[in-house]
Amino acid sequence: MAAPLAFHFDFISPYGYFASLTVEELAARHGRQVDWRPMLLGVAVMKVMGLKPLLDTPLKGDYMRRDVLRHARRHGLQLGRDLNASPGNPLAPARAFYWVKQHHPHLQAQMAHALFHAFWVQARDLSTPEAVAAIALPAGLSAAEVAHGAASDEAATLLRNAVAAAIGAGIFGSPTIVVDGEPFWGADRLHEVDEWLSCGGW
Amino acid sequence: MAAPLAFHFDFISPYGYFASLTVEELAARHGRQVDWRPMLLGVAVMKVMGLKPLLDTPLKGDYMRRDVLRHARRHGLQLGRDLNASPGNPLAPARAFYWVKQHHPHLQAQMAHALFHAFWVQARDLSTPEAVAAIALPAGLSAAEVAHGAASDEAATLLRNAVAAAIGAGIFGSPTIVVDGEPFWGADRLHEVDEWLSCGGW
Repeated sequence: MAAPLAFHFDFISPYGYFASLTVEELAARHGRQVDWRPMLLGVAVMKVMGLKPLLDTPLKGDYMRRDVLRHARRHGLQLGRDLNASPGNPLAPARAFYWVKQHHPHLQAQMAHALFHAFWVQARDLSTPEAVAAIALPAGLSAAEVAHGAASDEAATLLRNAVAAAIGAGIFGSPTIVVDGEPFWGADRLHEVDEWLSCGGW
Repeated sequence: MAAPLAFHFDFISPYGYFASLTVEELAARHGRQVDWRPMLLGVAVMKVMGLKPLLDTPLKGDYMRRDVLRHARRHGLQLGRDLNASPGNPLAPARAFYWVKQHHPHLQAQMAHALFHAFWVQARDLSTPEAVAAIALPAGLSAAEVAHGAASDEAATLLRNAVAAAIGAGIFGSPTIVVDGEPFWGADRLHEVDEWLSCGGW
């Protein structure tokens, strides 16, 4: 079986959310699965890069707000979240995700979708383990175990290692899809991933 | 007649070069012309944004080098220029361009293509008015007038005003195509410009 597509993203990245809605269909067309790998853009990656958050970057921040809403309109997506609102602390959802991935690997995609939906469509706060546990969880997960998992040292270590591995692999943006070692950055590059998978690269 | 597409770019931007190769065909499909508007990313725009050059940005610089070469391979483009080589001072080609646009407006597209080709395919140095005048110029332009124009106060003022206007309009990346007031950033967004022109926006 061919290797899964490594899907790197940040839950608080709107472009990561957009890509999350179609990445599995893209992978399935080529007989691939998706390995979901959340990371922490603002807390970790941007510091390595020496950049400030996109929305706080002059000119680019305004464009990004416009582009995100334009993409949502084009694809009929309802973004409940105000882009100017603080995203809150991104550690809890990412830790909860890695805990679920570790202990219920078959639920990783459902957990990622549940977190994205809670954050971007429902505009829920996900800043604490309790807030994460209160979202509509995939069947088979209890709020108690998610709250416990998100607050665990194990989850903190899993996330820390995942972020370090992503940075070590050169990942700097959300989403980035790595196909057999070849990275593609940007929600607008999924068609290129599709082409790469179709022809085996160039 | 519908307004031209405003095509903002930097001559030293590889993505600007890529887009320059197809923007006229895109515009023509919709009965539009192209208004060529070079700007100065490194010298002016990035300072407003508080960013360092892309190629000097950790992680992103490495990705960009890879992505540019991948795009060139995919489209059969020969990039003579080493991406790691200094681009040199970008003032002379941009000033020469605006001088030609002012005095021979019907030659603006040919002049833009000539400069892009000299820089990206032939890897010529364009750091001085004389170097710019020594490229293969469009028929109807003499090397002497281009050298004179590129060194003129008039060209310096035209460029300064164009860069200020671009920044004032929120332009921060190369290429950015503005269609009837709607900006699209990135060589990978030309298909979105195409769609916007086809349906009149959304």
